[in-house]
Amino acid sequence: MPEHTATSRLRLFGLCFFLQILNILLFAVFVRYSPESSPGLCPSRLNCSRRNPDSGFQQPRFQGVHIQVLLSLGLLVAFLSRYGPGSAATSILITAFAIQWALLIQGIFHFFLNGKIYVGAQSMVSADFCTAAVLISTGAVLGRVNPVQLLLLALLEVTVCSLNEYILLSLMGVRDSGGSLTIHTFGAYFGLVVSRLLYQPHKDKKKREEQQDMGQQGDVFAVAGTIFLWIFWPSFTSTTTFHDNAENWAVLNTYFSLVASTVATFILSPVLYEESTPRMVQIQDATLAGMAVMGMAGEMLVTPFGALIAGFLVGLISPLGFRFFTPVLHSRLKIQDTCGVHNIHGLPGILGALLGTLLTLLATADTYGDRLELLFPLVAQGSWSVTYQALMQLSALLLTLLLAALGGCITG
Amino acid sequence: MPEHTATSRLRLFGLCFFLQILNILLFAVFVRYSPESSPGLCPSRLNCSRRNPDSGFQQPRFQGVHIQVLLSLGLLVAFLSRYGPGSAATSILITAFAIQWALLIQGIFHFFLNGKIYVGAQSMVSADFCTAAVLISTGAVLGRVNPVQLLLLALLEVTVCSLNEYILLSLMGVRDSGGSLTIHTFGAYFGLVVSRLLYQPHKDKKKREEQQDMGQQGDVFAVAGTIFLWIFWPSFTSTTTFHDNAENWAVLNTYFSLVASTVATFILSPVLYEESTPRMVQIQDATLAGMAVMGMAGEMLVTPFGALIAGFLVGLISPLGFRFFTPVLHSRLKIQDTCGVHNIHGLPGILGALLGTLLTLLATADTYGDRLELLFPLVAQGSWSVTYQALMQLSALLLTLLLAALGGCITG
Amino acid sequence: MPEHTATSRLRLFGLCFFLQILNILLFAVFVRYSPESSPGLCPSRLNCSRRNPDSGFQQPRFQGVHIQVLLSLGLLVAFLSRYGPGSAATSILITAFAIQWALLIQGIFHFFLNGKIYVGAQSMVSADFCTAAVLISTGAVLGRVNPVQLLLLALLEVTVCSLNEYILLSLMGVRDSGGSLTIHTFGAYFGLVVSRLLYQPHKDKKKREEQQDMGQQGDVFAVAGTIFLWIFWPSFTSTTTFHDNAENWAVLNTYFSLVASTVATFILSPVLYEESTPRMVQIQDATLAGMAVMGMAGEMLVTPFGALIAGFLVGLISPLGFRFFTPVLHSRLKIQDTCGVHNIHGLPGILGALLGTLLTLLATADTYGDRLELLFPLVAQGSWSVTYQALMQLSALLLTLLLAALGGCITG
Repeated sequence: MPEHTATSRLRLFGLCFFLQILNILLFAVFVRYSPESSPGLCPSRLNCSRRNPDSGFQQPRFQGVHIQVLLSLGLLVAFLSRYGPGSAATSILITAFAIQWALLIQGIFHFFLNGKIYVGAQSMVSADFCTAAVLISTGAVLGRVNPVQLLLLALLEVTVCSLNEYILLSLMGVRDSGGSLTIHTFGAYFGLVVSRLLYQPHKDKKKREEQQDMGQQGDVFAVAGTIFLWIFWPSFTSTTTFHDNAENWAVLNTYFSLVASTVATFILSPVLYEESTPRMVQIQDATLAGMAVMGMAGEMLVTPFGALIAGFLVGLISPLGFRFFTPVLHSRLKIQDTCGVHNIHGLPGILGALLGTLLTLLATADTYGDRLELLFPLVAQGSWSVTYQALMQLSALLLTLLLAALGGCITG
Repeated sequence: MPEHTATSRLRLFGLCFFLQILNILLFAVFVRYSPESSPGLCPSRLNCSRRNPDSGFQQPRFQGVHIQVLLSLGLLVAFLSRYGPGSAATSILITAFAIQWALLIQGIFHFFLNGKIYVGAQSMVSADFCTAAVLISTGAVLGRVNPVQLLLLALLEVTVCSLNEYILLSLMGVRDSGGSLTIHTFGAYFGLVVSRLLYQPHKDKKKREEQQDMGQQGDVFAVAGTIFLWIFWPSFTSTTTFHDNAENWAVLNTYFSLVASTVATFILSPVLYEESTPRMVQIQDATLAGMAVMGMAGEMLVTPFGALIAGFLVGLISPLGFRFFTPVLHSRLKIQDTCGVHNIHGLPGILGALLGTLLTLLATADTYGDRLELLFPLVAQGSWSVTYQALMQLSALLLTLLLAALGGCITG
Repeated sequence: MPEHTATSRLRLFGLCFFLQILNILLFAVFVRYSPESSPGLCPSRLNCSRRNPDSGFQQPRFQGVHIQVLLSLGLLVAFLSRYGPGSAATSILITAFAIQWALLIQGIFHFFLNGKIYVGAQSMVSADFCTAAVLISTGAVLGRVNPVQLLLLALLEVTVCSLNEYILLSLMGVRDSGGSLTIHTFGAYFGLVVSRLLYQPHKDKKKREEQQDMGQQGDVFAVAGTIFLWIFWPSFTSTTTFHDNAENWAVLNTYFSLVASTVATFILSPVLYEESTPRMVQIQDATLAGMAVMGMAGEMLVTPFGALIAGFLVGLISPLGFRFFTPVLHSRLKIQDTCGVHNIHGLPGILGALLGTLLTLLATADTYGDRLELLFPLVAQGSWSVTYQALMQLSALLLTLLLAALGGCITG
């Protein structure tokens, strides 16, 4: 982090103050609690009954709230192991700001009614998805930008990310429950494009050395991050899958994928790095990659060995990417990738999206049974063919890459 | 911690042994499992149906058990960042003892019937509230008392705290779901009064230096503590709000408050300490303060921006308190506040209680709708006016301060 | 850990690769998702209705999935405090492999139908039980075997452990919800027998010194492990108790036991080690021991003070075992016990089983009421007497010890 003079300190002070006051004012003018839970107050247009059909669905939504900041925090812990506790304070500031801002922006897209934004547990979870994408982007540029720049990055990225999510999920009817596209791919490529535009050849070397110095402390954080992700991520993946049946498979598939991905790291590590056991950071990367690949496909896979194979392949690709692709990225394309988000989030996200597309193409009423209606309601109703749905999923991937690159350019 | 001679070691041994045997004997004589869950065995006077009306309410109570020790442990982790792992062992001893003792004392007030105390999930949660208050008090005197003194402190404080809670919640009908008064305010001022009476001018300086030495290790604990609190506290706040609707708002309000409080720390820190980013410990303090202020008001606030403003103000007041008020406290009033509990728990607790009083005064059937009956059943039934309820909330604050001071004096 | 030459590295690479490919192939051939959650697809023989009687039971099973890897991970964290982050990578590899393998082996015993293994949330939880036993055994030999040997140990132990569990729970009708026998006793004695057969007098001394060097870092992990166990273990104990009433008591009993066990550590520690407060590692051991003893008896105890006494006794026995029994074990029986699993898991597990046997013997319809049918369905139906059930519980203990020793011999 560059030395902060008194000026830059005051700029951070001013920006924080301004943005927080702005947030409070905007919340005061626009945001109200969604009356969905008090039936008497529900405005007719909000269609409360859909969100709150019976008391059986009450529980999952509350659980969603309980774990709503977990995703972002898990990523935060993961970055600590690479960059040290020095970055924690900044990351928490970004998280705290991005959640408020994402609530506002997403509220405009999704929950806007009569000049008011109605928030509830659901919008909190969506806002956290967006915050996670911002944190992934932050991971790509960490150590080369100051907090003021990061705040501005969060400001812009939340806007573009919400736009992307709105187009994908609401307009195109794409299924992406675990956020392979909306979180991982978008966040990674947004961050990489910003990183390209902020290229500073000299800063990098110093940073890289500091990073190596972390040593023991980094290991502690990596162990903590890995365990944290193992415990909480699978249940997070299933927050947005609203039906019990689908939830079940998404959780199990994610577990299978991450288990296979972890073993894969142990296979490649001795060959690539001539070490007997991989370092904890590599295991953590494999865990993240194994989860990113299951983001879209998690609820679509109908056989456990599919998840095992996907996780295994991603667990092989991610270390190979670190070994052979990151240097190329750095020397040829002049992109510095502080936390390796391309290998951990970018590539697995794309692979996950491609896998999801393939599975969509293969979806038939036979293999899915009742689940078909839950996963692809438009297909089940006969208004779309599976090919059209698959095409939609594929074009969503391209659109996400385009928007991420575009947004990154503007931000940079 | 003063050097322990063989005598003090034996005294700790003796006291622990005596208290644990006493606990076992008292449990053997008085405590039985509440038969609330097995309908056939329910004695008529215990009014089992009220606590277990239908299977829908079963779930929240069990969740309550699952997270029942979280509150205390979160505080414990928070203190570690200020005082180091040396204090962990003692804090865990205090926790383990206080939970048993609080079960007994609170059982006498709440669940006593035919010479037996019937415990269940509900009483576990109450006992943990009490333990949290004891740990906050411990935070004020940590490092200047030995474990034997702390055990005696816990012994007395649990008794006074249970008395206070019984008067407030059962006799006066005050709403304090998140414990702004019963946990934060009581614990902080009890600890401060004890600290005043144990004033030792020379010990302090040495300690303060040691505290500075923590450095890196402290940061690790502060990161862990902050993340722990972000994840678990909001759901804890809502354990005692027994209806689903109210729970929803309490959780969301707490999140809003803590987000705003965190940003506020980033605003003040550059101005007060001339650092570019605040240290993790300050962020953790802001998190705690933002949560303490929502203790009473969390379920009463009907607009998200109210929570944002309250969190923002508390986030500004808490660092200002550290900068300007703690030195005054120390030099004028001769109160040493090891972990700064006055700024983190005391002031925010009082502010939360005042905010709750204000909100009670403004409560009308229009803004609350069906919730009014849940929050203030006596008001909704027409037997109390809102003014009277507000007066009750205010006098509860004064009573808590009085009892805390009185209890602290006796203990000291 | 012995130095790994290029050969041993390649052997690990090859073994991991082979086992993972084998797992994927076996999963591809045999494993399918259990159709239990989609009623239309349920084969008649699987008896889906028993597992999914009504929507009220849906919730507990999903919670089971959410916390399914917690048990293993908690043990993993616990070992870190004794052996340092160097062992973390290997332990995670073992966990990742053992979960897949246990799913296959247990699937053959429990869920095999028409040549397919149907997996679901339930089988994931069982697989995690098995993995926990493997990790306990690993704790006994950690530092003296290389990852390749550990993988082979996991391969064999999962098989024997599944066999033991199948005989105990399915054939003999033994109740062991928290795994006093199937996890703690089996894992500990399996590990100890293997440790005996791998006895290397010289390696040990070097290790023991390294272990002492951990110091501060170990304390951090011990604090984290203790808190982790306090939060999650009690809810884990109750995963397999399928009825709400029994769950309630199992959780509360476990809390009481661990609280008493913690206080007991503070009583003995000043006497045994001449330290004023015990080290965090000792508190963590007491926590584990207090939980192990409640594994079988947790759902049977009808009075809180019973749990207090059991926890208190175990809390006294475990440190005494470390002080007096481990040296005897080491010098006479030539068994090295790296993480002290005999005192933490072995002895408490046996005591828990004996306590469970005693409680079974005393079980009458009067004390248990409706619970009798849930705990001992065969007794309630009149086909077994309580004496016979108690005999079964006792012989289960002997069988577990026998199988553990036999399995350990083969593995060694």
